Amino acid sequence: MLQTKQPVTVEKVLEGGITSPKGFLAGGTHAGLRYAKKDVGMIVSEVPAACAAVYTQSLFQAAPLTVTKESVSVEQKIQAVIVNSACANACTGEQGLKDAYEMRAKTAEKLSIEENLVAVASTGVIGELLPMDKIRLGIAALEPSELGAEDFQTAILTTDIVMKKACYETTVDGQKITIGGASKGSGMIHPNMATMLGFVTTDANIDSNLLQEALKSITNQTFNQITVDGDTSTNDMVLVMANGLAGNVPLTPDHPEWDNFYEALKRTCEDLAKEIARDGEGATKLIEVQVKGASSKEEANIIAKQIVGSNLVKTAVYGNDANWGRIIGAIGYSGVEVDVSNVDVSIGSIHMLIGSQPKTFSEEEATAYLKQDEVVIYVDLHQGDGVGTAWGCDLTYDYVKINASYRT
Amino acid sequence: MLQTKQPVTVEKVLEGGITSPKGFLAGGTHAGLRYAKKDVGMIVSEVPAACAAVYTQSLFQAAPLTVTKESVSVEQKIQAVIVNSACANACTGEQGLKDAYEMRAKTAEKLSIEENLVAVASTGVIGELLPMDKIRLGIAALEPSELGAEDFQTAILTTDIVMKKACYETTVDGQKITIGGASKGSGMIHPNMATMLGFVTTDANIDSNLLQEALKSITNQTFNQITVDGDTSTNDMVLVMANGLAGNVPLTPDHPEWDNFYEALKRTCEDLAKEIARDGEGATKLIEVQVKGASSKEEANIIAKQIVGSNLVKTAVYGNDANWGRIIGAIGYSGVEVDVSNVDVSIGSIHMLIGSQPKTFSEEEATAYLKQDEVVIYVDLHQGDGVGTAWGCDLTYDYVKINASYRT
Repeated sequence: MLQTKQPVTVEKVLEGGITSPKGFLAGGTHAGLRYAKKDVGMIVSEVPAACAAVYTQSLFQAAPLTVTKESVSVEQKIQAVIVNSACANACTGEQGLKDAYEMRAKTAEKLSIEENLVAVASTGVIGELLPMDKIRLGIAALEPSELGAEDFQTAILTTDIVMKKACYETTVDGQKITIGGASKGSGMIHPNMATMLGFVTTDANIDSNLLQEALKSITNQTFNQITVDGDTSTNDMVLVMANGLAGNVPLTPDHPEWDNFYEALKRTCEDLAKEIARDGEGATKLIEVQVKGASSKEEANIIAKQIVGSNLVKTAVYGNDANWGRIIGAIGYSGVEVDVSNVDVSIGSIHMLIGSQPKTFSEEEATAYLKQDEVVIYVDLHQGDGVGTAWGCDLTYDYVKINASYRT
Repeated sequence: MLQTKQPVTVEKVLEGGITSPKGFLAGGTHAGLRYAKKDVGMIVSEVPAACAAVYTQSLFQAAPLTVTKESVSVEQKIQAVIVNSACANACTGEQGLKDAYEMRAKTAEKLSIEENLVAVASTGVIGELLPMDKIRLGIAALEPSELGAEDFQTAILTTDIVMKKACYETTVDGQKITIGGASKGSGMIHPNMATMLGFVTTDANIDSNLLQEALKSITNQTFNQITVDGDTSTNDMVLVMANGLAGNVPLTPDHPEWDNFYEALKRTCEDLAKEIARDGEGATKLIEVQVKGASSKEEANIIAKQIVGSNLVKTAVYGNDANWGRIIGAIGYSGVEVDVSNVDVSIGSIHMLIGSQPKTFSEEEATAYLKQDEVVIYVDLHQGDGVGTAWGCDLTYDYVKINASYRT
C-alpha cells in the first residue's frame, strides 16, 4: 500500500557542521604547506559510511581523484577523508599518483582501517609535487574530534575569505537525521588555487546507490549551478558519507519521508554552493538568477547559468548599473531556443522588460537595489513550466588583482 | 584542362582602407548622437556590388540586421551601407524596425538607388530608440568621397580606442585586385556598447554565392576566433561588397589564382579581427593561441578559443605570470577529447610542459616574455594534423572599470 507523503519538515541548524551528525569527527592542522594557516584536514566516521561522490568533468583529473575513485569503487563505502590545501597534486605524473596513494596509506594506518575506506583530496597550485615530508607530519599530528569541524573547514581553504559550512536536521521514522557539510572554492571552478571541494556527512541510513542518485540530481541544481569565472578545475569533488548511525530504516524514494531527507541534503548542498559563489574571488555581492517559463528545467538552468556567468552582467552588477540589455544578450547566446518576442526581465522587483518591451523604471530605485549584497535577477520565458536557479558573484577589480599575481 | 596553381602573392597596403578598391567612396559625420565624435557613416560603391554577409548567432537580432538581411535577399547586391554608433536599435520593437527602414529609405533617396541596395548597421546601447531627427540630419550631411575612409572608420567606433582598418592587393588575370576593410568592436562580442561590425570592400569580380562561401570559411578562422569577454552581441555583422570594377574574369575556386583572392580576403579579415582583440576593453596585450596536433581543424579552433577566452589565463597574462596550469585547465574543460598524457605547452619559445610533464624554466625569462605587448601560447596535442589559432586580450582592472560604469 502506498503511504501518504508527509509535508517536508527540514530545519536549519545555524551552529552545525560536519561533526553534527552522529559518529563523525574532524580535525585540521598546520603542516607547513602554507605560511601559517591550517593546511591538512581529516574527517572520520566511527563506522564505514555509504558513499556517493561527483567529480570534475575536466579531462585532466588530479591524482587524488584517481585514488578516491579507486577507494569508492571497492565497496562504495568510505570511513575517512584526508585533504590538503596549497598543492593540487595535479599534472604531477607517476610521482603524484604515488604521493596520493601514500596519503591514503598513512591515513588508513593512523586509523587502523582498510586503505579502500579512505578518500583523498587536494587543492592548490597545479604542476608541483606535494611536500610529502610535511604531509606525513601533518597526518600524524591530526587529532580528529567532535570539536574539530572548524579546524577542518579552515584547513581546506585556499583563496577563500570565509569558511563555508551548513547543517540541516529532519525526521525519518521518528528518528532525527542530521546532515552537515563543509566546502571550499572561491574562483569557481578554478584550475589553480581555488578548486571547489565539498564534503557532506550524515547519520542517515541509506544505500550508496540511492545516495549517489540523490547527489547527482542535487549537484545539478546546486554545485553545478554556481559560477565565479567559468573555469573548471582538475580537482573538483563533492563527497557524501552516510554512516547510518541515526538508526532509521534504510531510506528509499518510496519512503513517505524520503522528501525530508532529499530536501535536507539539497539545502545543505545549496547553502554550501551559495557560500562559494558569495565568496567568489574579489566578489562584493551574491547574484542569484531565477528563470521560469522555460521549456524544461534543464533549459532554465542553462539560461540562468549563462546570465550569472556573463562578464558583462557581472561587471554591471558590480557597478550598480541596471543594464538589462546584457541579460538579454546572455539569453540570446545561451544556445536555448526562446521566443524572443515574449521575455520578461526584472532586477529585484523592478520590471525592465515585459513581453520583450522595455519598461520605464526609476534608475535611482534600481541603483539602490543593486547596492545590496544580494541581487536577484528574474527572467520569465513564457514557454513552459521549466524553472531553474543559478548563483554567481560580481566581477571586480579585486578579481583581476587576485588572479593577475596569483602564482608569483 | 586543369591549370597549374600559381604561388600565392598577396601584398599588404599599409595606408589602404575601404576606399582603396576601385569605385568605393566613404564618409562619416557628427550627427549629435555622441558628444563630439563622428557617429554616422556611409560606404557607397559606384555600381551595385555582389554582397556576402554573416550575422550574430544571437536569437535577439537587432532591427538593422533584419533590414539588411531583407536587402541582401533581393538580389544579393548592395551599393551602400549606412551605419550609426551610440545606439544599437536592438530590443526596440516595432518602432525600432520602422526606424531602421527609414535609415535605409533616406540613404536610398540621397543616393538615388533602390532601397534593397542599402544595408543598415547600428551599434551602441540596447533598448533605446534611435534619435531619428539626428540620424536624418546626419544622413543628409554625409559627403562620401575617396578620402572619407578615416571619417567612416571613426564614425563606427564606440568604446574602441583605435580605428581598425586593413588593405591587401593581389593579382588575378594580370589585373590588380584590392581588398579594403574597416571594423569596430572592443568588448568582443559584447551586447551593449561594443558590438563587432566589419565592412570589407573589393573591386574583384566574383559571384555573391562564391563570395558568401569564402566569407563563411574565412569568418570561422578570423572573426569567430576572437574573444574579449565571451559575450555575443545582438548587432554583430560582417559585410563584404565586391563591385567587379577591377575587370577580372569572374573568380571561381577553379581559377588558378583563386588562392590569391581568398588569401587577400582572409588576411584582411584576420587583420581586422586581431585589431579588435588587441583593442579589447581595458586590454594591454594581444594574446594569440596556436594549437596544432588536434584531430581536426575545428577541434584545434575550439581549444585555442577556450584558452584565449579563459578569465584565468587572461588575468595571468595581465600579471606576467607564466601560469601554465590554467592553460591545461582550459584544455581540460573544452569538451574536446584529448590525450591528457601527451600535451605540450609553451609560452613564446619557453617550454612549460612536454608530453604532459612539467619542465623547469626560468621564471625571469618567462616574465620578461609576458611583459611584451603580444604574447603567443603554443599547444601541441600530438593527435593529428588539425591546427587552429585564436586571438584575445588580457583581463585588466580597466575592463572592470569600463563595464561596471558603462551605461550610467
